[in-house]
Amino acid sequence: MSFERVAIDELALNLNPLQTGGRASAAARKAAARFSDGYSVCDRCAGVLHDIEKPDIKCFAVELAEFVGMDRAAVTMGAREGKFAIFHTLSEPGRGAVLDANAHYSTYVAAQRAGLEVFKSTNTGDPDFRVTPDSFAETLEYCKSKTGKPAAAALLTHVDGDYGNLNDAAEFSKICKDAGVPLILNCAYSAGRMPVDGRALGVDFMVGSGHKSFAASGPVGFMGANGEWTERLFRTSLTHPNKNIELLGCTARGANVVSFMAALPGVKERVKRWDAEVAKAVRFVEAMESLGEIRQVGEKPKRHDLIRFETPLFHRIAENSRKRGYFLHSALADRGITGLKPGQTRWFKMSTFGFTDEQIDYLIEAFKEIARM
Amino acid sequence: MSFERVAIDELALNLNPLQTGGRASAAARKAAARFSDGYSVCDRCAGVLHDIEKPDIKCFAVELAEFVGMDRAAVTMGAREGKFAIFHTLSEPGRGAVLDANAHYSTYVAAQRAGLEVFKSTNTGDPDFRVTPDSFAETLEYCKSKTGKPAAAALLTHVDGDYGNLNDAAEFSKICKDAGVPLILNCAYSAGRMPVDGRALGVDFMVGSGHKSFAASGPVGFMGANGEWTERLFRTSLTHPNKNIELLGCTARGANVVSFMAALPGVKERVKRWDAEVAKAVRFVEAMESLGEIRQVGEKPKRHDLIRFETPLFHRIAENSRKRGYFLHSALADRGITGLKPGQTRWFKMSTFGFTDEQIDYLIEAFKEIARM
Repeated sequence: MSFERVAIDELALNLNPLQTGGRASAAARKAAARFSDGYSVCDRCAGVLHDIEKPDIKCFAVELAEFVGMDRAAVTMGAREGKFAIFHTLSEPGRGAVLDANAHYSTYVAAQRAGLEVFKSTNTGDPDFRVTPDSFAETLEYCKSKTGKPAAAALLTHVDGDYGNLNDAAEFSKICKDAGVPLILNCAYSAGRMPVDGRALGVDFMVGSGHKSFAASGPVGFMGANGEWTERLFRTSLTHPNKNIELLGCTARGANVVSFMAALPGVKERVKRWDAEVAKAVRFVEAMESLGEIRQVGEKPKRHDLIRFETPLFHRIAENSRKRGYFLHSALADRGITGLKPGQTRWFKMSTFGFTDEQIDYLIEAFKEIARM
Repeated sequence: MSFERVAIDELALNLNPLQTGGRASAAARKAAARFSDGYSVCDRCAGVLHDIEKPDIKCFAVELAEFVGMDRAAVTMGAREGKFAIFHTLSEPGRGAVLDANAHYSTYVAAQRAGLEVFKSTNTGDPDFRVTPDSFAETLEYCKSKTGKPAAAALLTHVDGDYGNLNDAAEFSKICKDAGVPLILNCAYSAGRMPVDGRALGVDFMVGSGHKSFAASGPVGFMGANGEWTERLFRTSLTHPNKNIELLGCTARGANVVSFMAALPGVKERVKRWDAEVAKAVRFVEAMESLGEIRQVGEKPKRHDLIRFETPLFHRIAENSRKRGYFLHSALADRGITGLKPGQTRWFKMSTFGFTDEQIDYLIEAFKEIARM
């Protein structure tokens, strides 16, 4: 077996939205390497990961909670593991979970694993694919009418991975509060890229992803709770009272947590530049659409770096190309650009996060050239 | 925050049983560093972690299953996450889980999180602390009488973390089969250190730990199932049929899985030297006991590298020492030896795994010197 990453992937501009917010910072990389031995993070452990002071996971958990505006946070293996822990805490037989129409598959699987019946809201369809607070309210109502009880939980995807739409979580919080349903905000694509404040948004729970949006070496993420929910999510074992049930005692007990910790200072700085990130996305969309036969779908103007394009232009070129569907992937690879699915020409999604203005210029130029092929 | 490990920890002989089998091999270290970017393992993913062929996680899962003698295996975040997934698969309201008396705390927490009532067998107490097949059979019976049904699952700790006792899993398998209860073998301290063959042992499920016993950079581990149980453990979502419910789609989606893969070839070699590892432990115990007022507890002679000592000798010296309880930790640190809990002098556990004969000689000499303090 080979463990070399394909050279071009490391050197190239990787447009995959999964990858742009998770490029490990130098500090994260160094910290992970320092702690690559199996249980080395536990060298100074007295029994609870989140109480370890060397490295200072204890302080980090507090700092992270403050950063995202939650009363208490804990490190998890990723956002989905946090979603499951919260759903599992709230689940009761016969109860439902309300999800927004653009929720990630792992949200479904997490709710299903916790034994909840899933009720999905609608979105507005082409071209915006927006989840409206009204559709969410209707789904909450529908869930109640079908199960006989309010949903055990509602989950809103703060920024979804299909369109990069940013939902106004505060509006959804109000609706959930009125319905008596606790709201989980999935910040896998928001926290760590842009400023997020759970308390200001009025959410009850939050999850986020270290490897997706915190420049950390994964898998790692976090979950947080506010107010009365804190105690329930972080309940402990009756037989082992210092062990959190939903954390199985300890979660990210390795290099991953240390890389997350080392990445945070840089992340705190980069979220201050969020407006510039959005401006970059908007500029990129304009340039791409000016090529003709290319259309950005999802909310417009962009308020996030994840962009979905419909690209009949590239599909038409592909049909006349010797490489057929692989032409776009191949033409980009020739220009040191990667991250698009091979074989995809009708549409694709990508992200402009973290690229310099010069790199954005280069990307635009590359697509322009390819449009003329 | 500082992310330097205390220098002596890295250079010293670390006796902590948590650490000796998890020192990352050079290959594991290099692979982890190569994939430290957040989601880089997903560069070539078509939707399912265990189907990724670059790096070849697909082959690895098959190779791992073969190595431990299970029909199917999947990478998890660690042994405890595997235990929970299995308990959760088997759990029903009102049912129990039977655990051996020496089970790790995370086994309790995993069973409790899955909603199972825990029934613990007894052990033979001082000096052997052995779990007998008879006591396990009695506990299975007791669980049935209390809950009205056979236990939903039984878990046997193959080698426990308190005494390093090695249980003859085949005997326990027969008992569980007779009782109609599926058996989970927790191999966190066995698989990766010594040869283990789940099919030969007749177990239904197995879990193991990459960061504890496979020289991998964690957190990472595996779970496996045999026969009819395979389909149940690896059931998929009705709405997302390529996503495993208990894996939440994908588990160890980062540097951890790659380090595990890179470590396996070395692990396959090292388990062939298991007899020599045991001989080392036996020799060390003899040397320590020859100092007087030191007694190895747990089964004797040792059949595993994890050793627990009662050390009235060191406690007596500590009482007369200026450093009191910290004398032993400090005297060892002076000699480049670490991994014992500070403040502990009445007893300690340690491991001889992976040390050279010369290092064992050095350790014996060090303890001899300290015994004369």
